[in-house]
Amino acid sequence: MEAKMPAGESLADAEGRTQARLADLRGRNYRIDMTRGKPSREQLDLSNEILTVLSAEDCVNADGDDYRNYGFGTGIPEAKVLLGAYMGVPAKQVIAGGNSSLALMHDTMVGAVLWGVPGGSAPWGKDAKFLCPVPGYDRHFAICERLGIEMINVDMRDDGPDMDTVEALVAGDPAIKGIWCVPKYSNPTGAIYSDAVVERLAAMKTAAADFRIFWDDAYTMHHLTDVRLQVMNILEACTATGHPDRPYMFASTSKIVHPGTGLASLAGSDANIADVAHKMSFQTIGPDKLNQMRHVRFFGDLDGMAVHMEKHATIIAPKFAVVDDALTRNLGGKNMATWNKPLGGYFFNVDLLDGCAAEVVRLAGEAGVTLTPAGATFPYGRDPRDRNLRIAPTLPPIEELERAMEVFCACVDVVSLRKLKAAA
Amino acid sequence: MEAKMPAGESLADAEGRTQARLADLRGRNYRIDMTRGKPSREQLDLSNEILTVLSAEDCVNADGDDYRNYGFGTGIPEAKVLLGAYMGVPAKQVIAGGNSSLALMHDTMVGAVLWGVPGGSAPWGKDAKFLCPVPGYDRHFAICERLGIEMINVDMRDDGPDMDTVEALVAGDPAIKGIWCVPKYSNPTGAIYSDAVVERLAAMKTAAADFRIFWDDAYTMHHLTDVRLQVMNILEACTATGHPDRPYMFASTSKIVHPGTGLASLAGSDANIADVAHKMSFQTIGPDKLNQMRHVRFFGDLDGMAVHMEKHATIIAPKFAVVDDALTRNLGGKNMATWNKPLGGYFFNVDLLDGCAAEVVRLAGEAGVTLTPAGATFPYGRDPRDRNLRIAPTLPPIEELERAMEVFCACVDVVSLRKLKAAA
Repeated sequence: MEAKMPAGESLADAEGRTQARLADLRGRNYRIDMTRGKPSREQLDLSNEILTVLSAEDCVNADGDDYRNYGFGTGIPEAKVLLGAYMGVPAKQVIAGGNSSLALMHDTMVGAVLWGVPGGSAPWGKDAKFLCPVPGYDRHFAICERLGIEMINVDMRDDGPDMDTVEALVAGDPAIKGIWCVPKYSNPTGAIYSDAVVERLAAMKTAAADFRIFWDDAYTMHHLTDVRLQVMNILEACTATGHPDRPYMFASTSKIVHPGTGLASLAGSDANIADVAHKMSFQTIGPDKLNQMRHVRFFGDLDGMAVHMEKHATIIAPKFAVVDDALTRNLGGKNMATWNKPLGGYFFNVDLLDGCAAEVVRLAGEAGVTLTPAGATFPYGRDPRDRNLRIAPTLPPIEELERAMEVFCACVDVVSLRKLKAAA
Repeated sequence: MEAKMPAGESLADAEGRTQARLADLRGRNYRIDMTRGKPSREQLDLSNEILTVLSAEDCVNADGDDYRNYGFGTGIPEAKVLLGAYMGVPAKQVIAGGNSSLALMHDTMVGAVLWGVPGGSAPWGKDAKFLCPVPGYDRHFAICERLGIEMINVDMRDDGPDMDTVEALVAGDPAIKGIWCVPKYSNPTGAIYSDAVVERLAAMKTAAADFRIFWDDAYTMHHLTDVRLQVMNILEACTATGHPDRPYMFASTSKIVHPGTGLASLAGSDANIADVAHKMSFQTIGPDKLNQMRHVRFFGDLDGMAVHMEKHATIIAPKFAVVDDALTRNLGGKNMATWNKPLGGYFFNVDLLDGCAAEVVRLAGEAGVTLTPAGATFPYGRDPRDRNLRIAPTLPPIEELERAMEVFCACVDVVSLRKLKAAA
């Protein structure tokens, strides 16, 4: 990508103009947090009824089991039915957990490191490696880094990871134990895994007998348009190719109801579920079953969840439009940035000129707009080209978001022109 | 302990009589579960208001922070204040966690094994050893066994573990990294740690610089009498002797509100809290803050919790009386069993003649009364004398409990007499 000057304007003129613009914005003393994909208050209000929906009567099932008491260590049947429908998996292959799918992923990885997984001959230990489609989710990468699992970058494309590279790597190295995947509306690029990619992930030969796909289906119902995109079912695809134990599927309702009080789940083959349940039996007496029942009462069924998600989309789609409009108006045609047009999920992915991302974050911060740190979307926090940024539009009110985007675009202008000048 | 015959009855007569009695009881087709310390439905009903106590307005604090959103990874301030009061620790030294103190203990141990703890020069790895006062809590021991941590039995006395043995062991072996303690109304013996024991635990020299006391204060407000027993504060005692990082204190409200939907907490020195918080930051975005706020709204403060606990005591004290009465009436003076008189907590501890515990459990099971397996109260499930059993009186209604105790005592009679006969 090569930056283009506005016709008839010198580099020096453009630089002066954009710096004046940024100085003006800085003088307005904004204070806007764009760091994480947080829902707005209006979105949170959508779920207020869940706070009081549960009565003591709701806690006793048809068999007389009282969910207010101990028992049901892998979750209550009603929650497994709801989450199974959500994940496209039979209820019996679902663990309905606590409030955090990240904890399920972290603990599953810790369990693999300490005790191994079905199909393996030994614990993963500290010599395991993991494939990381980039850019990706910082908290996935942090788990690997923490456990000393070496991360290998693989390019993320619009339809999923670069499968030629993935196939070559996993076939050649038995230390490569898995891959992180966010299959729909990927964080942050918005990628949607194609059937071909899912089929190749399911069918590929892996040197490791205990290879695992950590399938974090975080945004499966988080549509921004009327299109109800379906990604091919990874568990079915893997089962069809004789690798039923390959995927661990994760989901949560944190961005559906209230973050922190959602419902996390793990799904997979019978062998994986039995293994995970065994590991969990040492860790906890069981999940918060009443919060599970609260979800069941609040949503009823999958249709209820879908209706609820439409309300979210109604609130956040205009915010995504604000970001796209601002980027198009301010940076369109300048070849200073490329960005995706998300069909769902929580983020925009912006690629700048090489070497500009960290400086844009710094300048924006000075102007009162806190962005996710540059590099956060890469393993070890290192973006080899220092060009990738993630924008999270959901939290600020529209007016604040418009301001934040003005600042962002002005910073991109200034930093890109400096870069150009230095190269000239 | 030597069993005594009723005056004027032969061993054969006694055996015939007790076997007939057991056969009669078996014919009644009881089906009573005495395996775990579960609250009864009446107890669960005490907390029904917590289900609907929280409104959306309650979720926003004075600073405008919205607990329905992300943030507050170590818990909300209001919950830390309540739990700090409960644990006798400043709020800033409290982590208000999820629903399971067992998970906090498990994850703290896993973290120590993988990454070490403050004061240590290396992770604990798989060569660590742990002291286990016996009899004790099976789930504590299971965590150690799972992690390959060698467990060393230490006798539990009425005032805590045998400290002469503890001191000698920890001074001599740097691989001994810690000890499990349930300081008040200990599971299952009902032991109450004396000031002298707490002071010795705090002051003792340990060969391991990173020695830890896992202080599971599970029953701190679970009084059965009007006496509000206080155990000396372990954190203060350890701080006074220059070992502020020695204790990890754990608590939960699982047996105060509804099991599974309680609030777990960890308290300790600033260094320990910072370390645990760092480790947790890789695992989860944070706990269920709304369930924390629910607790705060339901209880108000520590006095509110105390009043609530009195209601529990009113319900369960008569059940403890049933057990003690049955044991006294059926086994008193026979020298077949000794048992404690719990002042709080959830269990009776019964010691039979050596070699009788497993057989009593088996016979009782045949008669429809499921007891906690013999050996469960010891590391590796192995009671070296096969004599210790745990009785959990809270769950069954009084009438069922009376029946269960009839069966239990008849089984003890039969098994003890057989034992005597074999020895005669």
